[in-house]
Amino acid sequence: MSERVVIIGGDAAGMSAASQARRLRRVEELEIVVFERGHFTSYSACGIPYWVGGDVTDRDELIARTPAEHRARDIDLRLRTEVVELDVPGRRVRARELETGAESWWDYDKLVLATGATPIRPPLPGIDAAGVHGVQTLDDGQALIDTLETVEGRRAVVVGAGYIGVEMAEALISRGFDVTLVNRGTEPMSTLDPDMGVLIRKAMEGMGIRVVGNAEVTGIRTDDAGRARAVTTADAEYPADVVVLGIGVRPATELARAAGLPQGQSGGLLTDLAMRVRGHENIWAGGDCVEVLDLVSGSERHIPLGTHANKHGQIIGSGVGGDYATFPGVVGTAVSKVCDLEVARTGLREKDARAVGLQFVTVVIESTSRSGYFPGAAPMTVKMLAERRSGRLLGVQIVGREGAGKRIDIAAVALTARMTVEQMIALDLGYAPPFSPVWDPVLVAARKAASALRKQDRN
Amino acid sequence: MSERVVIIGGDAAGMSAASQARRLRRVEELEIVVFERGHFTSYSACGIPYWVGGDVTDRDELIARTPAEHRARDIDLRLRTEVVELDVPGRRVRARELETGAESWWDYDKLVLATGATPIRPPLPGIDAAGVHGVQTLDDGQALIDTLETVEGRRAVVVGAGYIGVEMAEALISRGFDVTLVNRGTEPMSTLDPDMGVLIRKAMEGMGIRVVGNAEVTGIRTDDAGRARAVTTADAEYPADVVVLGIGVRPATELARAAGLPQGQSGGLLTDLAMRVRGHENIWAGGDCVEVLDLVSGSERHIPLGTHANKHGQIIGSGVGGDYATFPGVVGTAVSKVCDLEVARTGLREKDARAVGLQFVTVVIESTSRSGYFPGAAPMTVKMLAERRSGRLLGVQIVGREGAGKRIDIAAVALTARMTVEQMIALDLGYAPPFSPVWDPVLVAARKAASALRKQDRN
Repeated sequence: MSERVVIIGGDAAGMSAASQARRLRRVEELEIVVFERGHFTSYSACGIPYWVGGDVTDRDELIARTPAEHRARDIDLRLRTEVVELDVPGRRVRARELETGAESWWDYDKLVLATGATPIRPPLPGIDAAGVHGVQTLDDGQALIDTLETVEGRRAVVVGAGYIGVEMAEALISRGFDVTLVNRGTEPMSTLDPDMGVLIRKAMEGMGIRVVGNAEVTGIRTDDAGRARAVTTADAEYPADVVVLGIGVRPATELARAAGLPQGQSGGLLTDLAMRVRGHENIWAGGDCVEVLDLVSGSERHIPLGTHANKHGQIIGSGVGGDYATFPGVVGTAVSKVCDLEVARTGLREKDARAVGLQFVTVVIESTSRSGYFPGAAPMTVKMLAERRSGRLLGVQIVGREGAGKRIDIAAVALTARMTVEQMIALDLGYAPPFSPVWDPVLVAARKAASALRKQDRN
Repeated sequence: MSERVVIIGGDAAGMSAASQARRLRRVEELEIVVFERGHFTSYSACGIPYWVGGDVTDRDELIARTPAEHRARDIDLRLRTEVVELDVPGRRVRARELETGAESWWDYDKLVLATGATPIRPPLPGIDAAGVHGVQTLDDGQALIDTLETVEGRRAVVVGAGYIGVEMAEALISRGFDVTLVNRGTEPMSTLDPDMGVLIRKAMEGMGIRVVGNAEVTGIRTDDAGRARAVTTADAEYPADVVVLGIGVRPATELARAAGLPQGQSGGLLTDLAMRVRGHENIWAGGDCVEVLDLVSGSERHIPLGTHANKHGQIIGSGVGGDYATFPGVVGTAVSKVCDLEVARTGLREKDARAVGLQFVTVVIESTSRSGYFPGAAPMTVKMLAERRSGRLLGVQIVGREGAGKRIDIAAVALTARMTVEQMIALDLGYAPPFSPVWDPVLVAARKAASALRKQDRN
């Protein structure tokens, strides 16, 4: 007897789940129906800034698998179709075709929520004006590129200095715009501590981006035609021919909330280790619409990243297909490129550690990406937090040039294994002059952290 | 009352030990005497191929700390002085000044053996001829460069295809020589399995290096003036204006052996976790003259690498200075650059695993260094071994281009933490399009290895 799984959302998590389930179950055993509101499937939202900036020339390169490819694998994919109601007791969803408005109910045996996240759009005057762009979806990216290619002026204002805001500022500079980045925090990239964020601000300023910190946006000033002309804050006004919003996202869980499914502090769905919505054996959720367990702090957080969404999809597809897989949690790793800087972080910032009651030591070291004498050796700053008494690694932040960013993986694995900084000192990492100083920068930081812990114990 | 430590050997391990001991103990508390046979201290032997190849232009760049700098820190450093006898019961060494031949006995309270390794020079006809060069020390490097700058012909033959041999072949190509690499094994880099080594051979051939495998060198043919003219094997003769030996090294432990100190299979000294020679509370040893514990196989091995020597020195200096530190062992990580390839390995090869009775699965995957659509994304091959039943990671080998090599650190930390490949699948590694595909190549390999293990269990 055939079962039906309904999947809501056709990007990373949803389509990975569909593909993995299909690998495990033939169409006679499992019918797979996917509803996707937009025009595209399985695309790299993380690639949008590089498409806007010109590193990636063709939108289609960002699409890992097209709708036609999914359909060829017996996945009943319905684009431009939005699920508008979820009836959990009745095991059915109501779907609306966006072009026609036609609605229909679909029964399911199993349900997958992969509804993603929605860009935050504060209810400010002018926020919906022409010339104001989000960059969450491929449709958003195309709309922004269309504006950039037709707009008369060259002044761009980016609101928000998280990963997307910073990457978009760089993309706009690449396209020849005069860029101002308006940021609520003191320094860009609040996923880092401010003493590391300052390094990013300086690099951005060095490439001609004006970075405004401690600035709360109060609105978008528009002209008579309704086009955005400036971004206003309490203190100032920043003229703009185009405005890009990079304020962040929140889980898109209105549907699930209306159906009474359990949510965490951020509004993300709460799941068990098999990515099933808690209390619901036949409903899975993954990707940007869920909260994930932070293995370092032991608390749940909303971390919308494609890498997690892909893993979730794989695990959900295994569960839906009758196999077994679990998602143990994350340690909070992220890496990004800002101008010629590589920026990476994992684990807890100082304020995260304090918030969960941890006491810790902090060290910051300067080293180089290669042996100091080797051509191309570039400076690198590593910040490390270690728990008092236990000596356990709590977090690492790295800002440097080529070769800096992916070093965060050393710390990510060490955090997962709950290593102490003392254990890390002896790690047998790859060394050769083109790759590292004889003491890898991460080990130099671990050595200094271990020393700081010993000093603290004496006090 | 002042103690005296005598340190034999003034390179990475010896001088790190001296420096760390001096940090902990003032000169009134501890007299530090170092005997070094050569002209230099604390230099990067790993950098010699890059100096020969021209990436590093000045020999002095390879010197981390000069004799004068060490002496300024109250280290009694005696260059061109060789210790010729070790009297363990009498707690004294006999030192000979190489320039004058003068000898004297020196008492010690503590002794550090950091005598390094000696290049293997098989007793072949012509092996000591003019034009035949080792590349172990700065003096060796200088002698080779002098030859390269004055020799008439352009034909170079490198004997041995380990790290040094392969790096030297590339350095000689950079200097405009016509290079033949003669190798006993089937493929270069026997620290990798042959199916990975073949990738290196192809890259070397691609840059014009002639790679001869399965060739046992029988001698060096010389001319009437005693200069090397060709390298001969059982089957062939390879004309040579200069010959570079990269056959490998063995622990330089004649002195210690004569004194009855314990040695392992390779001839390297055996130490405890604090790097003290087993059974001798006041004698430490570290660097290329010791064997280290391989944490993956549980056996002792000789792994002469600067990164270990530096760590050993630090730990020995702590012990000599009355502090506490230990060296838990290694997992066998190494990384190297060959032409535009990055080559890395950690843990066990297939034959290592078999030799210690492990059963395992092997997978090889192809991926890219960045998201496939991102400029500069380059192919990468990852081989992974995982233990049958337990699923424990046993080893990883990576061959790729920019961004491939240091990914080995992910596996190095996972090996140290004794992770299973199933645990590795969920690792929260850094992802962004300029740095990685959404599934990092190492995770793709882990996923495939986990799947292979499940299949094997079903059989």
